[in-house]
Amino acid sequence: MTRYSYLSHLECARCGQSQDATHAIGLCPSCNSPLLARYDLAALARDVPRDALRDRAWELWRYHELLPSSSAEEQVTLGEVVTPMLRMDRYATDIGLDELWVKDESATPTSSFKARGAAVGVSRAREVGMRRIAMPTNGNAGAAWATYAARAGLTALIVMPRNAPVVTRAECLAAGAEVHLVDGVISDAGAMVAAAVADGDWVDVATLKEPYRIEGKKTMGLEIVEQLGWSLPDVVVYPTGGGVGLIGIYKAIAELLELGWVHGEMPRFVAVQAEGCAPIVTAFERGESESTFVPDSRTVAFGINVPKALGDFLVLDILYRTKGRAIAVSDEDLLAELRVLGAAEGLFVCPEGAAALRAVRTLVQEGWIGREERVVVLNTGAGIKYPECVDTDLPVLAPGSALPTR
Amino acid sequence: MTRYSYLSHLECARCGQSQDATHAIGLCPSCNSPLLARYDLAALARDVPRDALRDRAWELWRYHELLPSSSAEEQVTLGEVVTPMLRMDRYATDIGLDELWVKDESATPTSSFKARGAAVGVSRAREVGMRRIAMPTNGNAGAAWATYAARAGLTALIVMPRNAPVVTRAECLAAGAEVHLVDGVISDAGAMVAAAVADGDWVDVATLKEPYRIEGKKTMGLEIVEQLGWSLPDVVVYPTGGGVGLIGIYKAIAELLELGWVHGEMPRFVAVQAEGCAPIVTAFERGESESTFVPDSRTVAFGINVPKALGDFLVLDILYRTKGRAIAVSDEDLLAELRVLGAAEGLFVCPEGAAALRAVRTLVQEGWIGREERVVVLNTGAGIKYPECVDTDLPVLAPGSALPTR
Repeated sequence: MTRYSYLSHLECARCGQSQDATHAIGLCPSCNSPLLARYDLAALARDVPRDALRDRAWELWRYHELLPSSSAEEQVTLGEVVTPMLRMDRYATDIGLDELWVKDESATPTSSFKARGAAVGVSRAREVGMRRIAMPTNGNAGAAWATYAARAGLTALIVMPRNAPVVTRAECLAAGAEVHLVDGVISDAGAMVAAAVADGDWVDVATLKEPYRIEGKKTMGLEIVEQLGWSLPDVVVYPTGGGVGLIGIYKAIAELLELGWVHGEMPRFVAVQAEGCAPIVTAFERGESESTFVPDSRTVAFGINVPKALGDFLVLDILYRTKGRAIAVSDEDLLAELRVLGAAEGLFVCPEGAAALRAVRTLVQEGWIGREERVVVLNTGAGIKYPECVDTDLPVLAPGSALPTR
Repeated sequence: MTRYSYLSHLECARCGQSQDATHAIGLCPSCNSPLLARYDLAALARDVPRDALRDRAWELWRYHELLPSSSAEEQVTLGEVVTPMLRMDRYATDIGLDELWVKDESATPTSSFKARGAAVGVSRAREVGMRRIAMPTNGNAGAAWATYAARAGLTALIVMPRNAPVVTRAECLAAGAEVHLVDGVISDAGAMVAAAVADGDWVDVATLKEPYRIEGKKTMGLEIVEQLGWSLPDVVVYPTGGGVGLIGIYKAIAELLELGWVHGEMPRFVAVQAEGCAPIVTAFERGESESTFVPDSRTVAFGINVPKALGDFLVLDILYRTKGRAIAVSDEDLLAELRVLGAAEGLFVCPEGAAALRAVRTLVQEGWIGREERVVVLNTGAGIKYPECVDTDLPVLAPGSALPTR
C-alpha cells in the first residue's frame, strides 16, 4: 500500500542522531544543529513509479511522497504553482552560453521562493500542533510565513531590520501579523526573537531552526529536474543568504538520484553572494568548513544580507562535494546585470537573481562554465519587490505635450 | 485535420462588419470601434474533444485553438501559468457565503492579469509584423506590454500618469522601454500616444485599439470554467476600469457554451468601480448604453481609474444581458476589506481586488447574492504592487530590546 508521505524520521545534519518526526521539534537536542527530514526512499522506489506524477496537479504538492504533510488535508495552500523555467536564448548568446534557464520564483504566492518554505513549513507546524510562530527575517521569509500563518489560522510574530524592503513589511501587516522593526541586521532580529521565545509561548521557526522549511525549498530542485524532462543540469547557480534554497535543491537531486527517478551526475553548485556580505565566499576561498560573521554587512540585494548562516557548513560541504564555486558580486555589477537581462528578455529579476546572473557571466568568461553546459539560475523573487533597483526619476510632461520620442 | 488556432476573422463589436485577421489592423475601418476575434467554433467542436486538453501544459496556451497565434513558435512566453483559484472559506463565512473563489492573478508574469493580454497581444502583434508598439497605461498594462515587447524583441513606447504606481514605471524601464510621464490621467496619456502614432511609425496598441489583448484576457474565463471542473459559477465579480477582463471572461464563457465544452446558464456579471471613478455604475443606474467621461477621477485603486472606456458599451451590454450589476465602493471601504481578507486568509490582494470583495459583501447583505450561490471574484494583481495600501509606519527598536509582544 502506498503512503501519502514517506517521511520516516529526522536526522541531525551534524551529529547524525535520529529524532522522531511526529511531534514538534526544533534543533537537535544533542548538539543544537539543524535537523533534516529523511524519507523511506527504498519503499517509495518500490511503491511508486515516477509516472504516477503525470496526472497530478501542476503544483509543488505533486511531490507529496517527498514532503512531510501526512495527507492533503494537512496542506495549507495559496496556490503553489510549479514556477516557470524560462529559456533565455538572447541573453545566453550575449554571455556566451548555449543553454541558460532561469527558474523564475516570482510566480509563487508572495512572489518569492520563500513561499515554498512557508507553505510546507506552516503546514507541518500546524500538523504537529504549533499555534504561535515567531521568526526574524530580511523581509521575504517573514512575509511568506505571516501570509501562510494567516491562511492556516496561526498567529505570527515577525521581527525584521528597519531597512528590509518596505513591501515585505506591508505583506506581514496585511496578513495580520505582529511586526517589529529593529535598527540592525537579521542577526539582531534573531536574538530578539529568541528572547521572546524564551519568555513566552512562541515557537522559533527561524531558518533551519525547524526542519521543514527546507523541505519546501527542496521542491525547486524537484521541479527543475522534472521540467528538464527528468534530466539534470550541469551547473546550478544560487544567490546565497541563509543558503536553505541551495541545500534544498541539492537534497532534492540527491533524493531523486537515490530513488532512481533521475540518472546522471550531481550538478556543480555555485553560491553567489554580494561583495558587502560574503561570508561563504571567504570561507570557501580559505577551504574552511564554516563561515565567520561579517560585521556591518550591506548590499542592495537584501535577501542575501546574512552575515552568518546557521547552515553555512552544509552549503560549504555541498560546494566542495560538487566541485562548485562561491563567488561575490558588487552591487554596481548586479544592478547593471538586472538591466541587461531586462532589456534582452523582459524579465524583471530581483537583485539576488541579478547577482546570480552576473556570476554566470563571470564564470563563463573565466571558462569555468563551458559554452555547451546546461546552466540553471535561480531568480528567487520578483523584481517588483525592489523597485529601488531601477532609477525611476523621469521628467513630467504637461497633458498635450508632444513626446520627445526616440 | 485539426488546426492550431481556429481564428477565422475579426468582427466589429458595433457595426458587425467582418475584417481579415491575417494582417495588422486596429479599429474597425468603417465605424472606428473595437474589433473582436471570431473563431470557427463549429469546426473546433467537430475536430477537438474537450478531453484533448488533459495532457497539455498547465498554462494559458493550453487553449490555443481559441487563441489567435497560428503556431506554438509564434508565442511569446514568460511562463503564463494557469493562476490559482483559491477557495476562501473563512472569509466566505464572515460575509455570509458558502462558496467563494478568488481567481488570483498575482501568479502571472508582471504580477497582474495584464500579462495575459500582453502575452497574447504581443505574440500576435509580432506575428502580423508589428515592430514598434505604443500605449497609454495606468501602470500594469504598460509594465506587461513593455516586458513582453522586450521578450519578443519589439520596441515599446509607454506613456503613463505621473501618479501611476512607481513600481510599474520601474518595470517598464527595467524592460528597456521608452517611458514618458504625464501630469494627468490615462486619457491624457492616450491622446499623447495617438499624436505620436500619427506622427511616426509607432502602432497604437491601447486598450481595445487592437483586437488581441482581449483574447489574452479571455483565458481567465477559460481557466475559471476548467478549474471549476468544467462548470459555471453563478456570479462573476470584476473590478472594472477599461473592462476588457470582464468582456474577455464573458466572451470565453460564450465560446465554451457554443462549443458545448460547458453547459448551463451564463453567470451574472458584476462590474465593480471606485466611488471616485464610476462611469459604468452611473450609466448602468441610468440604463444607458454608454458611459460619460468622469472629470477629476481619483481612487487608490489606480488600475480602475479609467474615466471613460472605449469598451464601455460592451461592458454595459453584458451587465444588462446577464441581469448583472454595477456597484461603486469607497476607497476607505476597499482598504478596510483588503485588511479583513488578509487577516482571514493571508492573501494580500490589490486594491482593485479588494474593491470587488467589498462589493460582494454588500451584494450578499442586500440579498442580491444568495448564500448558496457560487461566486468568483477576480483579484487582478498582487497587493505588493501597492504597498501604500497598508500603513507601514512602526516604531524602530534598538538591538537587544525586549519585544513588546502581545
